[in-house]
Amino acid sequence: MAEFDLIADIRSRAASSPFVDLGIGDDAALLSSLLLEGGKQLVVTKDVVMDGTDFLIEECGYRAAGRKALAVNLSDMAAMGGEPVVGFVGLVLPKVVSQREALELMSGIEELAREFKTVIAGGDTNSWDGKLAVSVTLLGRVAKGRAVTRSGAQAGDIICVTGALGGSILGHHLTFTPRVTEASWLASRYAIHAMMDLSDGLSSDIQHLIHESKVGTILDATLIPVTNDAKTLSQTSGRSAVDHALHDGEDFELLFTLAPEEYRRLAEDDSKPCQVYAIGEVTDDRESRIRREDGVIETLVVGGYRHSLGE
Amino acid sequence: MAEFDLIADIRSRAASSPFVDLGIGDDAALLSSLLLEGGKQLVVTKDVVMDGTDFLIEECGYRAAGRKALAVNLSDMAAMGGEPVVGFVGLVLPKVVSQREALELMSGIEELAREFKTVIAGGDTNSWDGKLAVSVTLLGRVAKGRAVTRSGAQAGDIICVTGALGGSILGHHLTFTPRVTEASWLASRYAIHAMMDLSDGLSSDIQHLIHESKVGTILDATLIPVTNDAKTLSQTSGRSAVDHALHDGEDFELLFTLAPEEYRRLAEDDSKPCQVYAIGEVTDDRESRIRREDGVIETLVVGGYRHSLGE
Repeated sequence: MAEFDLIADIRSRAASSPFVDLGIGDDAALLSSLLLEGGKQLVVTKDVVMDGTDFLIEECGYRAAGRKALAVNLSDMAAMGGEPVVGFVGLVLPKVVSQREALELMSGIEELAREFKTVIAGGDTNSWDGKLAVSVTLLGRVAKGRAVTRSGAQAGDIICVTGALGGSILGHHLTFTPRVTEASWLASRYAIHAMMDLSDGLSSDIQHLIHESKVGTILDATLIPVTNDAKTLSQTSGRSAVDHALHDGEDFELLFTLAPEEYRRLAEDDSKPCQVYAIGEVTDDRESRIRREDGVIETLVVGGYRHSLGE
Repeated sequence: MAEFDLIADIRSRAASSPFVDLGIGDDAALLSSLLLEGGKQLVVTKDVVMDGTDFLIEECGYRAAGRKALAVNLSDMAAMGGEPVVGFVGLVLPKVVSQREALELMSGIEELAREFKTVIAGGDTNSWDGKLAVSVTLLGRVAKGRAVTRSGAQAGDIICVTGALGGSILGHHLTFTPRVTEASWLASRYAIHAMMDLSDGLSSDIQHLIHESKVGTILDATLIPVTNDAKTLSQTSGRSAVDHALHDGEDFELLFTLAPEEYRRLAEDDSKPCQVYAIGEVTDDRESRIRREDGVIETLVVGGYRHSLGE
């Protein structure tokens, strides 16, 4: 099987889009200026997923791996309040991967893309004697000035998450629905000061919020929603379910902050498309802390999943 | 060394751009609608390079590997007649790579980016127990309708290349200058019907031109310019220098077609920024052929480098 055949197959299945003037099959793709009409900003996310790190291909299969490659990018897009439009896929396939498996991987990407009205408009295909890696670049858009960054949190803000955390290794990390709809709903109706998605784990990700917004945070252990999977793990791990919620990572829920009066309005809003849990507040120092179940406040030690280089 | 430190280092060195509203450090990058002002089209290229396939990291070092990761994308951008603007880098690093080596790789990217007025605005950093892969996505722009695709070649066109071919394995594949300036010069002054860059090898790449333009081609073996490296290889390989020029690949010269009268004007143009070699012509069948030194016309068999999947 040759690369050219695979690309022809992928191309024959590609959906059309009013924004894609030229898709798969040339040296590059061409997108229409309509994409940014009305002064919109272009939102670009790029995330690579890899066998052994982000999934175990022998266990999850090619479709789930492909799905995740796009899903993590959609999650980043959501975290900016962006509307996904066009995706590009770089396949790095082990030589033993068959065309059927490669197309299954693409199907995982394409099915999720369809769900979020996103079109695959290009990329490249490679094979080697190494392991599977899938690099996705996602382009989207947002009305100028309406993107929600990590840098807008203010002292006194309430910190919220959109769902229960922890234990995603039991399956959620492959099956999660990126919070694109929820983020767009939130950002268009409420004055969200800062937003990000939870990928490395709450205790780790919140460091980025602290760093970018130049604030501190104090979480309340009794308020952090934990998944049933976190509870299941805690039965044998020797760690509490809250500990799993704080450090496991790969939750792909949104973390956001907003003023207390905005939060109260949101809490009472019956039209919310998802749960919203207030889990702490923003402070004016630069500390990351947690109020434990017994009321004791301590430093929140980063224990989340962290890609390490050279260690 | 942690991923976060590396990103902080990369971020601290990032250049600014009037098109980048928000660069490295958030969930996504934000680019200004100015990028497509005046109805420009967005040009997107995505190419992954890998250790053992596109370079041997032990031999070439991190700087050269990084340079090539961007260079192959700039070459694709050139082939569309596009102006590169913003790059995104996905690093997949073996765990043994040190921060110094990772930054050296980034330096290789950044130096070439500067040369082509391109800014690195985002990406992601990962490590694993696999080999090195670098995924670059390059965004650029082109005036609407001025992109040069692979599909516009017409019967009777002259087929040209911008430089001598073959033997790139001796070094050129790492050190080539992407033909961005030359492509822009050509596309703005001459009615170029079709253009692409030569990456897999002339005999292989020309198949794409035939396929997309629904034409045939006949090359003239006596007109194909060969590099000194191709000649050097031919002394020990048992293959002719022209054979190397046809099949070696990784030349990263432009292949383009234009009407005979346009070609004559170009051939006499003393302001050309590069050599232009007429190497054959476009025919109205769908055949890929070559006129050998003895005048015999035969089918041009694809023998260029080809990524193979599952073989």
